Amino acid sequence: MDTDFIKATYIATRPDRDPEELAENIAREQSLELTRSLIPEPIAERLLGRILSVTELDAQHWQLELRYPAELASGQVGQLLHLVYGNVSFYPRIRLVDLALSETLLAALPGPAAGIPGIRAWTGIDDRALLMTVLKPRGSDPADLARLAERFAGAGGDIVKDDQNLVEREIGEFRKRITLCSEAIDNASQKSGHQCLYLPHVAGSGSHLHHQLDHVAQLGLGGVVMCPWVVGLETAATAAREHGLMWLAHPAVAGVFTEAADHGIATPVLLGTLVRLAGADISIFPGSGGRITSHHASDEAATCAALAGPLGTLRPSLPCTGGGKTLEQAPEIARQYGPDCAVLVGGDLIGRGEGLESAVRDTVARFGSVSGGTGTVSPG
Amino acid sequence: MDTDFIKATYIATRPDRDPEELAENIAREQSLELTRSLIPEPIAERLLGRILSVTELDAQHWQLELRYPAELASGQVGQLLHLVYGNVSFYPRIRLVDLALSETLLAALPGPAAGIPGIRAWTGIDDRALLMTVLKPRGSDPADLARLAERFAGAGGDIVKDDQNLVEREIGEFRKRITLCSEAIDNASQKSGHQCLYLPHVAGSGSHLHHQLDHVAQLGLGGVVMCPWVVGLETAATAAREHGLMWLAHPAVAGVFTEAADHGIATPVLLGTLVRLAGADISIFPGSGGRITSHHASDEAATCAALAGPLGTLRPSLPCTGGGKTLEQAPEIARQYGPDCAVLVGGDLIGRGEGLESAVRDTVARFGSVSGGTGTVSPG
Repeated sequence: MDTDFIKATYIATRPDRDPEELAENIAREQSLELTRSLIPEPIAERLLGRILSVTELDAQHWQLELRYPAELASGQVGQLLHLVYGNVSFYPRIRLVDLALSETLLAALPGPAAGIPGIRAWTGIDDRALLMTVLKPRGSDPADLARLAERFAGAGGDIVKDDQNLVEREIGEFRKRITLCSEAIDNASQKSGHQCLYLPHVAGSGSHLHHQLDHVAQLGLGGVVMCPWVVGLETAATAAREHGLMWLAHPAVAGVFTEAADHGIATPVLLGTLVRLAGADISIFPGSGGRITSHHASDEAATCAALAGPLGTLRPSLPCTGGGKTLEQAPEIARQYGPDCAVLVGGDLIGRGEGLESAVRDTVARFGSVSGGTGTVSPG
Repeated sequence: MDTDFIKATYIATRPDRDPEELAENIAREQSLELTRSLIPEPIAERLLGRILSVTELDAQHWQLELRYPAELASGQVGQLLHLVYGNVSFYPRIRLVDLALSETLLAALPGPAAGIPGIRAWTGIDDRALLMTVLKPRGSDPADLARLAERFAGAGGDIVKDDQNLVEREIGEFRKRITLCSEAIDNASQKSGHQCLYLPHVAGSGSHLHHQLDHVAQLGLGGVVMCPWVVGLETAATAAREHGLMWLAHPAVAGVFTEAADHGIATPVLLGTLVRLAGADISIFPGSGGRITSHHASDEAATCAALAGPLGTLRPSLPCTGGGKTLEQAPEIARQYGPDCAVLVGGDLIGRGEGLESAVRDTVARFGSVSGGTGTVSPG
């Protein structure tokens, strides 16, 4: 067995067959998908998935540790996803809970082109958590969205993202809106002396997607928002990079993977490891305490670690907790997560009306006062 | 309210709040994602999702019928998926079970470029179910895969697809393999007088994906296999079409949507309606009785109807049942589904050894003898 491998750990809940047999079935299903007797020995030797361990955890749960040859990922994060959870997604009660890759494979996958260092370099903020807001609702006059962006940036906010509902069918309308927002943020940043990062949402596919990315790059913006579970993780992994842009991964639709108790892929693997391997510079995940709270909210610390902790020589992705957080919650979140995180506050900030600027200034100041703190959720 | 709309029907199991409130929350979350009081009235009037009905089905289940303005799909099947199941994927126990679109929106989405008529025109088989096989395992010498393809095609098999594990990192290797297989199938088809359709698997993203599609088109092949839940439904919707190719949607990873009892998206909507809207000419879904059997196997008839039944002016997609079917099962499946289906037999066919040709001839003959039968699962 060579040293270039993928180790996948699954939890089987109330296994529907003998756990050893189940482990062998999954290893074969995911690697070569053929009856064992029909696989020629040299191919089995080189490419068949193997069992590392089968462990009873309790009366209902078994842990299955499998090892696949790295070659099967074909150097693509999409095929990696396919390899570890393609057909097995139709098996009952099998959840992928951990994923470890050899150094060679880690080096072959994209990983963030910029990551936390790139975002800190762009914003000039090197020692505290970052405050992010979102431009919404869809249907607004672009000038109104630009005004919201300008007020946030002018008050010292760090990152403005488009709502993932903001999509134009006509590229001209997209250009008009993001040009307005970009100019507004630039003006505000020049006045405040603090460069706010604006991330427009790009959607669609083929040439339409690339025209949007082209325009974002032409405006000199730093990056974009993409929904990898809508446009495809594999597509997201290369689209922004081909235009020299950073990208933020929005978790829309990802709940189908993460939210079941005994099926799917655990949040730290999906919105942590896989999204980081795909090169997301920022990953939003729903933490606890907001309008949207993951069923597995206790995974927060592990998700942060998967995004920003050691992973071969890959740059760290910036963890961002979202899902309807309030300004009041933000400093406590920053304290818990440590400085290497972003907190997304949308509706609660928009709802401040005339008090928006002071709320931003106050929150950022409170982030500052906790920088370097001993974050209990910090992946450090 | 205008007439251009999307009607989404959800089942809420043990709703975590008052069902009327839950319906309002989902309608708002999915459309404008903002506190109601912060949405300006003209925008709410035009773009806010609305409740059509909230119905108690039994002590545990409520049916929520919502209506979204078609404008929110932005003419993209990816944004349609996002609209009907983006953030709500993180809500507990909400399953999308039905999706109906206005005629205007149906006309704006891709739909199959060829569909069943195109596949029948290619193969020259206009009155019976089609037999499909798969080239595997990965790691085989391309000449061995070509020989398997040639034997199947020479015996009168209808469609050969690549295994979705077949991926080359180097475009040259991809070209070499599919050229060999294509030539072998052409030779066999010329001898047998029956044109077998060869669908190579294309994977990856960006220019790498398009180089593969380019080469498939240059060889004069009819189409490709893509995994829309890996490369992205939105990406799949345009990639093959941009090269004038048909495409088969493989369901890898889709089990995260379909297999939960009370969460995700029902198979007829996901592997039926959505995949057809995205333009898949063939959709594979795991039916019952094979190695992989969906938890919701009783959805088979509805999935066939969603793929091949009336849907605006969209061409029908060919339903294909897979998941480890045997040759022995195939004629009975064709009888149940009616003539407008394909049956995928992989390992069982490869395992026939010297008897492969006679098994193919026999199965196709038995398909023929049931053509025009009164299929009980036929979407007619």
